[in-house]
Amino acid sequence: MPHIDERWRMLRSPDFTPYEAAVRNDPTTVLLVGADPFAPDPCMPTHVVEAVKRGLDSGRTHYSLANGYAEPELRDALVQKLAHFNGLLVDPGTELMVTPGSAFGLYIAMRICVTPGQRHEVLNFDPGFPENFNDAFQMDAVSVTIPTLAEAGFQFEPSVIESKITDNTRCIVLTHPNNPTGTVYDRSRMMALAEIAARHDLMVIVDQAFERQIYSRRYYTTFATLPGMRDRTLTVFGTSKDLGLSGFRVGYLVGPREYVDILKIATFNMHGPTNTFAQLGAAAAYQDPSFTDEWKETFARRRTFGVSVLNAIPGVSCPPPDGGFFFWMDIRKLGTSEEIRDLILREAKVGVALGTWFGEAGEGYLRVMFGTLADDERFRAAIERIAAVLRGRAEARGIRGADG
Amino acid sequence: MPHIDERWRMLRSPDFTPYEAAVRNDPTTVLLVGADPFAPDPCMPTHVVEAVKRGLDSGRTHYSLANGYAEPELRDALVQKLAHFNGLLVDPGTELMVTPGSAFGLYIAMRICVTPGQRHEVLNFDPGFPENFNDAFQMDAVSVTIPTLAEAGFQFEPSVIESKITDNTRCIVLTHPNNPTGTVYDRSRMMALAEIAARHDLMVIVDQAFERQIYSRRYYTTFATLPGMRDRTLTVFGTSKDLGLSGFRVGYLVGPREYVDILKIATFNMHGPTNTFAQLGAAAAYQDPSFTDEWKETFARRRTFGVSVLNAIPGVSCPPPDGGFFFWMDIRKLGTSEEIRDLILREAKVGVALGTWFGEAGEGYLRVMFGTLADDERFRAAIERIAAVLRGRAEARGIRGADG
Repeated sequence: MPHIDERWRMLRSPDFTPYEAAVRNDPTTVLLVGADPFAPDPCMPTHVVEAVKRGLDSGRTHYSLANGYAEPELRDALVQKLAHFNGLLVDPGTELMVTPGSAFGLYIAMRICVTPGQRHEVLNFDPGFPENFNDAFQMDAVSVTIPTLAEAGFQFEPSVIESKITDNTRCIVLTHPNNPTGTVYDRSRMMALAEIAARHDLMVIVDQAFERQIYSRRYYTTFATLPGMRDRTLTVFGTSKDLGLSGFRVGYLVGPREYVDILKIATFNMHGPTNTFAQLGAAAAYQDPSFTDEWKETFARRRTFGVSVLNAIPGVSCPPPDGGFFFWMDIRKLGTSEEIRDLILREAKVGVALGTWFGEAGEGYLRVMFGTLADDERFRAAIERIAAVLRGRAEARGIRGADG
Repeated sequence: MPHIDERWRMLRSPDFTPYEAAVRNDPTTVLLVGADPFAPDPCMPTHVVEAVKRGLDSGRTHYSLANGYAEPELRDALVQKLAHFNGLLVDPGTELMVTPGSAFGLYIAMRICVTPGQRHEVLNFDPGFPENFNDAFQMDAVSVTIPTLAEAGFQFEPSVIESKITDNTRCIVLTHPNNPTGTVYDRSRMMALAEIAARHDLMVIVDQAFERQIYSRRYYTTFATLPGMRDRTLTVFGTSKDLGLSGFRVGYLVGPREYVDILKIATFNMHGPTNTFAQLGAAAAYQDPSFTDEWKETFARRRTFGVSVLNAIPGVSCPPPDGGFFFWMDIRKLGTSEEIRDLILREAKVGVALGTWFGEAGEGYLRVMFGTLADDERFRAAIERIAAVLRGRAEARGIRGADG
C-alpha cells in the first residue's frame, strides 16, 4: 500500500448516517442540521437568477482571471458592500480577492499564517466552527482551545486568550457571530483582543459568514475596522449563509496587501479562479440585497417562537442567540448530546446537530437550525415535536420547570 | 509583522505584466497564451447553457452535499463517460468525486501522498505543467525532475524515472497528454512505468485534462486501466480544456476507495462542494459532447496549418503535437525564450507563453496555443505574423532553412 499522509488518514467528518437512515425510514423527517437558508426549499430571488442567465447568454463562461479573481461587477459590488455594511474601505486591486466559498478562504487564511511541521498553534474557540479545528490539524498545525462559558453568554475572556499564547502561536480565529453559539462579541472585548494581537504580533482570522443576521442590540463590529487591526486581520466572507447562495460557491477575503498578494498566487496553484457566471449572481445579490429584509423578519420571528417553546422545557436552556439562525440548546440535564439527538430523531422525526461536532465543550448541547425550510408551519411543527419529546424526557427524569 | 509561511512567501506565479502592457498599448494584440478553448470568444453549446438555466429555475441552488459532491445527473453522466471513453468501470459511491476544477483535484491528489516536513519527493516531468512543481513546493514536499528529450519526442525513459526514485519518493505525476509538449505516451513505456510504480509501491497521479484532443494514431491509454494500476492511480479530469467549461470550475477525480474516502473528508474541510448548477451544465455536456467533434476538426486544421508555417521558419522546430491544442516550438537557434517572446509580442502583436514557465528544460522554447480564438482568420493571421517576425530574426542571424 503506498503512503497516505498520517494526518489525512485520521481526518473525520461528521457522521450523517443516522440522519440519512431516519429520512429513508420516514421521508417526512425534518432536518434542522445544515446552515443553508431555507434548504431544501427554493429561496433564490429572480434578479440573482437573471444575472447568472445573462452572464451565460453573453459568453461569461470563460476562466475568471481578473485581478483577485473578481469579475468587475462583483468587485465593484463588494467594494460598495464592504464600505457601507462593514465600514471597510478596501482597495480592490490589492486587498480583496474572490474565493470559491468561505471554507476555502478560511483554509488559505490559516495556512499562510503557519508553517507545517513546526507545531505552530492556532487559537480556536470552543464551542466553535469545527472546520477551524480540522483545518489546523489537516495542515499540520496545532489547534489550541479557548474555552468560552455559557454563564458568560459565550463571550470570550481576553485574559484567557492571552494565557494560551505561546512562542508557537501564529493566529487567532474569531467566528463572528460565533457558530454554534450565535454570540456577537462585545466591542470592549474585541478591543482587548486587538491589543493582545498587536502585543504578541499575531494575525486574526475573522469569519463573518453570519454577519447579516444580528438580533442583538449590541453593535456588530467588523474586527478589521478596529484601530491597528486592518494590518493584521484576514476577514473571510461568504455568500451562502449571508445571501442564500450556498450552491454558488462564491466567497471573498479581505486582508493586508502583503498577505493577499501571496494568497492570490497560492490560489492560482491550489484551485484557480471561482465560477464566472456564479460571480455575476453574487454581484446582483449584493447590488440589491433587499430580499434578505424579509428573511430577517422570518428568522427573528422563528427565533422568538423557538426560544419561547424550547426554553420552557424543564431541564432545557435555550437562550436567544445574538446572531445567526440557530439555537445552541443546553440539554445537559436530560442526557448526552448523542442520546438526546437520537431521541429527537427517532421520536420527533427531527434531525438536529450534535453539540460535540463543535468541540469538547459542546457535550450536552444540540444545535438546532431555525433558518431551514421555507414553510413556517413545517418549521414550527418540528420545534413543537422536539419540545413534546423533551418534555416527556424531563418528566421521566423527574425534572420540573421553574413553574412546575 | 506577523509570521508568513516561508514557502508561501516564496511562491511565484507567471508574470503576465508584459501581455497586459501589450494589450493596453495595442488592443488588437492577440494572446495565444491560455488553455481556455476559443477564449475570449463564446463557445458554449446551447444545451449546456439550457441545463444550467433549468437548474437555476428549479431551485438547484443549494449546497451539493450528495455523496462525492456529485449531483445525480453528473454522477451518472461521468460513470457512462468513464466507461465508454476511458474504459474505466467506476463505482460512483466509492471511487469518484467531483472537484471544483482539476487544479484542486491535482492539489489534493498530490497532498494525500506526501507528509509535509518529511522531504517527501514527487516526480515531475520537465518540461511539464508548472502547477505540479508549485503544488509540491507549496505543500512542503520536494519536486524531483524527470527530464524528457526533444530527440525522443519527449517520451519518458522508464530507466530515467527509476533512477530518480529514492526512499523519500511518494508519487509520480503524469500529465497525459503532456502540457506543454503535447506528447501522448507509448503504451509500452506506460506499462514499464506501471511496473516501476508497483515495484517501488508508489502512487501515480495522472492529469488527463487534454485527453479528448488526440491527433496521433498512437492509441491513447488511460493509465488507470493498465494491469494493477487501478489501485495505485489517482486520475484527475477537468471540463475546461476537455469541453470548454473553463468558467464552470467543475472537475472530477477517480481513485481507489481508500484514497477517495479521505479526499472527500479533506475536501469538506478545505473547500466544500462544487457549484451545484454548474454541475448540471457539465452533465449535459457529457451527455452530448458532439459539439466537440467540430472543435476537433478546427484544432486539427489549425495544427496542420501552424506546423506548416512555423516549422518552415529557418532555425525553428515545431513538430506536430500528439495531443492538446498547443505547439511546443523550439526557437533555441534564434534566442532565449524571453527574447523571442518579447520580440513576438512587440513586433507581431501576439502573446505566447515562455517555455521556462514549464521547467528548466523549457529554455529556448515557446508554447503557442492554437485552441484560442473562435475566428480562424484571426488565428491564422496571428501565426503568419509570428512567422514573419521569426523569419526576419533568422535572416538577421544568418540562419537559413534546409532549402535556403
